[in-house]
Order: sequence, then structure tokens, then C-alpha cells
Amino acid sequence: MFAHFPQQIRVNEVVTRDGFQSEPAFVPTETKIELINALARLGLSKVEVTSFVSPRAVPNLRDAEEVMRGITRDTDTTWVALVPNEKGCARALELAVDEINLVMSVSESHNLANMRMTCDQSLQQFARIAEMSAGTPMRLNGSLATAFGCPFEGAQATERVLGFIDAYLERGLHSITLADTTGMAVPNQVYDLCQAVRARWPELDVTLHFHNTRGLGLSNVLAALAAGMDQFDASLGGLGGCPFAPGATGNICTEDLVHMLHEMGLNTGVSLDGLLQQSQRLSEIVAHDLPGQIGKAGPRGRTRPLPESVQQLMQNGRT
Amino acid sequence: MFAHFPQQIRVNEVVTRDGFQSEPAFVPTETKIELINALARLGLSKVEVTSFVSPRAVPNLRDAEEVMRGITRDTDTTWVALVPNEKGCARALELAVDEINLVMSVSESHNLANMRMTCDQSLQQFARIAEMSAGTPMRLNGSLATAFGCPFEGAQATERVLGFIDAYLERGLHSITLADTTGMAVPNQVYDLCQAVRARWPELDVTLHFHNTRGLGLSNVLAALAAGMDQFDASLGGLGGCPFAPGATGNICTEDLVHMLHEMGLNTGVSLDGLLQQSQRLSEIVAHDLPGQIGKAGPRGRTRPLPESVQQLMQNGRT
Repeated sequence: MFAHFPQQIRVNEVVTRDGFQSEPAFVPTETKIELINALARLGLSKVEVTSFVSPRAVPNLRDAEEVMRGITRDTDTTWVALVPNEKGCARALELAVDEINLVMSVSESHNLANMRMTCDQSLQQFARIAEMSAGTPMRLNGSLATAFGCPFEGAQATERVLGFIDAYLERGLHSITLADTTGMAVPNQVYDLCQAVRARWPELDVTLHFHNTRGLGLSNVLAALAAGMDQFDASLGGLGGCPFAPGATGNICTEDLVHMLHEMGLNTGVSLDGLLQQSQRLSEIVAHDLPGQIGKAGPRGRTRPLPESVQQLMQNGRT
Repeated sequence: MFAHFPQQIRVNEVVTRDGFQSEPAFVPTETKIELINALARLGLSKVEVTSFVSPRAVPNLRDAEEVMRGITRDTDTTWVALVPNEKGCARALELAVDEINLVMSVSESHNLANMRMTCDQSLQQFARIAEMSAGTPMRLNGSLATAFGCPFEGAQATERVLGFIDAYLERGLHSITLADTTGMAVPNQVYDLCQAVRARWPELDVTLHFHNTRGLGLSNVLAALAAGMDQFDASLGGLGGCPFAPGATGNICTEDLVHMLHEMGLNTGVSLDGLLQQSQRLSEIVAHDLPGQIGKAGPRGRTRPLPESVQQLMQNGRT
């Protein structure tokens, strides 16, 4: 099972978008820029910086342009912005964002609830956005929200998910994210869907975006790895991610993910120590505890000194 | 990978022992008895009721005899008590406990720190306990703590773990628990150790006891299932489990485990609804929030009603 895992895993950070958007307090622009600049030094593949949404819809990200202009883009990191419509795309093009992330729910009712559009309308919009950005170096990632289940409708048919991937690719999108928006995925389902995607598109650039709402985030990563997937979104400290139930966690936690991958002998190129430092800083920024576990328990490799009484017992050779 | 999972899984509940022992407040005897009687109706394979330790060492379990005498033992559940020494064994025999759980750490230093004994001394004691209980119907389970790593010494050699299983079986113990005492296990390690145990003892009755300290509890269950293991300890609400770091969780949560297993199509015979009711009751008993996720987010199958605005959009057929 573990012998066939991909050896090199890409980790994408979404905390400054997915995490900050649902925080009770606005995080100051300068603080966002500092955090993003620090994260960009840690070997993450992508950083989803912000969202070019209406400031009215998401007041916490009203400084999207300032943040995107303010960060130092001198690393290999791919800089991503979430874009809900043509207006957002125009803003992204103006700022020469590396990649935009377009989101539609697999479930019709969730797309209506979340985007106030039918899936058809979303796809038409993505076609126009693809036209707008044709000929520019900006890449288009298409996210499929509720790919593993919808809180209103429940399970989504595999063929429907695959059909929308087709629709994305036909409209010129370059890569795909399968998102478990409300934490409904279970490992065997993840394995089956990932296998189905791999069977149809062996070379497609796919990201898995899991939430830990029901405690299954890292188990689902494991299942995706078993199906050959090698790219995952995560949020520093486990912040954010549409937690619709009080106390339930959202996105899987970046440092918990990287810790698991490294300890299983897989490579990410990401500095776990660096993540833990920034996670500590993040809990100061948001002024509350974070759901991540490694920030509290420490990496498993960090052993503790033997208590003195035990040292004496061991020196005596007996109790 | 998932095709070869065992289809019938046994779930053992440890909350009234592993959970209550480290709570700040003593849980009244009557409350313990009520909770255990309710749990015994839910289809759990074993319930680890209490621990026959010195009341000075674990004041929270000072009512061990009263609890064991007070519960209604009329279900198929195996009633277990943890026993640290011959005196505890005598108490268990007097009360006709179904099974006692004997614990030694794989790591010498951890055994010294925890039990104030060398591993050799622990094994000698287990031999005496096996003699004491020979000819009685009481079964002996041997737990190997720190089987997946010691907080002082780090990794433990597979051969050392297997050697202690041998030592347990030679001394007449009937079944084995591999315990990840401080949450150091990672999935590929779990898979490898479980495979090694299965290869040597295909028919041995083995339980896996995982902690979620580093967020990997259910991922480790998945790895154990992949290696053919079919029996797991868990604690209602995720209570307890030697959490040595503030905020870090302990035992894997029974309802989160059962939810995962059921949603993957595996059978446990355990009532998830019943667990969720008792977990709710448990958070009232201990008067604090519990780490379990399903208690907060609800099972994935429990869909929510469509918001009225979305119903209207769907009836109109367009936005």
C-alpha cells in the first residue's frame, strides 16, 4: 500500500485566503504581507494569497490588491488568487497573478446557495474568464466544491464530478482541485474518486483540498496518496475552512500534513520548523488557539529528556 | 487497498478508565455506573470499566470495586479492568472480572518512569499473575505501551516489540494490545508492525490502541485495517489518553472511529446514535468540551434542509 505512494508531494498554503476570510477580526494588511512573505520562504508549492471578491461580500479580504502588490514575489512559489467572476479576473490580470482559482460546486443547490448561480451559469462564466486570460501567462485552476458530498444533497455521483472536470478542461482550465468543502469525504470514497480521475486523465494536474470537519482530513490524504495523488491544499494551524458547526475544525492543518508526510518518508521540500514558527505567530495574529496538533504536541521525533528519577533507576540497573 | 479490509470490526470502549483517570474532578460512582450501563447497550465488544490500582496513585478510580459491583453485566460485552500488580489481580478475581489488562512499556525507560519497574520485573509479575488466575475463566490481555515510539527514547525496534509479544504469550497471556501511548505512530510504521505481527501470529487476538496526539489516530486505524487488523480501543468523545501537551488530544474518539468505519461500509455492531447521545451526556458529566468531531459536526449522512432562498432559486429554474 505505502510502497506505491508518490515520493514527492506538493503542499499548497491557503491560510491567508481560506483562513482569514472567516475570522471574526480583520487582519491588518501589513501583517498579512509579512506572514505571506515568511511562508513563501518555506518551500510551499502555491500560496493562495487572497480573493478578488467584492469587499462587501468578504470584508476581511478588502485589501486584496494591496496585499498582492505588497508581497515579495521572488521565490518559486506560485501565487494564487481566488476569483469569483470576470471583474475579479480583470483585477488578477492587472496584478499579473500567477494563477487564479475558479470555484463551482458539484452540487447544484450548493452552487446556488454559495455563488447564486446554476452550475451552467458558472461554466459560462469560466468560459468568458478563460477567453479574457487567453494569451497571458496566467494559469487557471478550477475547483470543484462539494466533490465528496453536499450538506444539502449528500453524495454526488462520480460521473457528475468527472463530467465537470471535462467541462473545465474543455473551457481551457489548466488544473483541477477536488474540494471536500464541508468535510464529508471518507477514505474509500476518496480512493475511488481519485482512481477514477487518474484512470481518465493520467497526466492531469490535480489538487486535493480536504477539511477535517469530521476528523478524517489526514486519513483522506492517505487514501489520495494510495491512489497516486501528490498535491494537497492545507491551512497553517488548520485555520478556517467554512466550519459550519461550532467547534468543528476546517481545513487540514499544514504543519500536521507536512509532519505526517515527512515521518512517512515522503518529500515535500517544506520546512516543518518554519511552519511551526509561523503557526505560533499566526495564533498571536488571530489571538486564539488553532486546531493543529503538531503545534501543541511537537513533532514525534522531538524526544524529551529522561526524568532524573528514571536516570537514577537506570544507572542503578534495577529499581 | 480498501477491498481487503476486514468487514467486521470490534470496538472497545476505554473512557471510564483511560478517560476518567486523568480528569481534574472525580466522577461520582453512580454516574460512572449509569454511563457504563448505557454504553453496554450499544454493541461495544469490550468495556474497560476501571483500574484496580492504588487509590493513592489514581484517586479518580478509588471506587473501582463499587463500580465493578454496581454495573449490570447482562450483555455480550467483555468487562475489563486494568491491573498493575498481583494485588489488583486478586481484586479482579474476587469480582469475577471477564478480563484483566496488564501493561508494560516496550521502552525500558518509559516502563521505569511509568511503572517504576524494569521490563524484566514487569514480565516476572505477569507470570505470577498468570499463575494466580490459572484455572479461572478470567482472560489476560497484555498491553505493550510505547509500541510505536517512546517520548524519551524515540522509535522502538520491531524485533523488541515482537520479542515482548513472545514473552507475553509464553507467560500465558491470551491477547495483545499494541498501544501508541503518546501518539507517535505514523501510518506506514503501523502497517509494517501490524504486518510483522500478522505474519508471525496469523490467529493472535490483537487490539490497536491509538492516540490522536499528533492528529494521526484515524489514519493509523486505516493503516492497521489495511494490514488486516480488526479490533480497536477508543474513548467516548476522545476523552483522556495521557495528553502530555496542553490542548493536544488523547485517545481516538469512539464516535469518530465508528462513524469512519460505518461510512466506509464496515460493520461494528455499534450504535452511532447511541454513542452520540452518551457523548453529549459525557460532556455534561465532565463539564467541558470534548475533542471528538462527530459530536460537533454530526454524521456526514445527516444533510441539512435547503435554505429557503435556494429553494426559490431552484423552483424558478434559474437565478
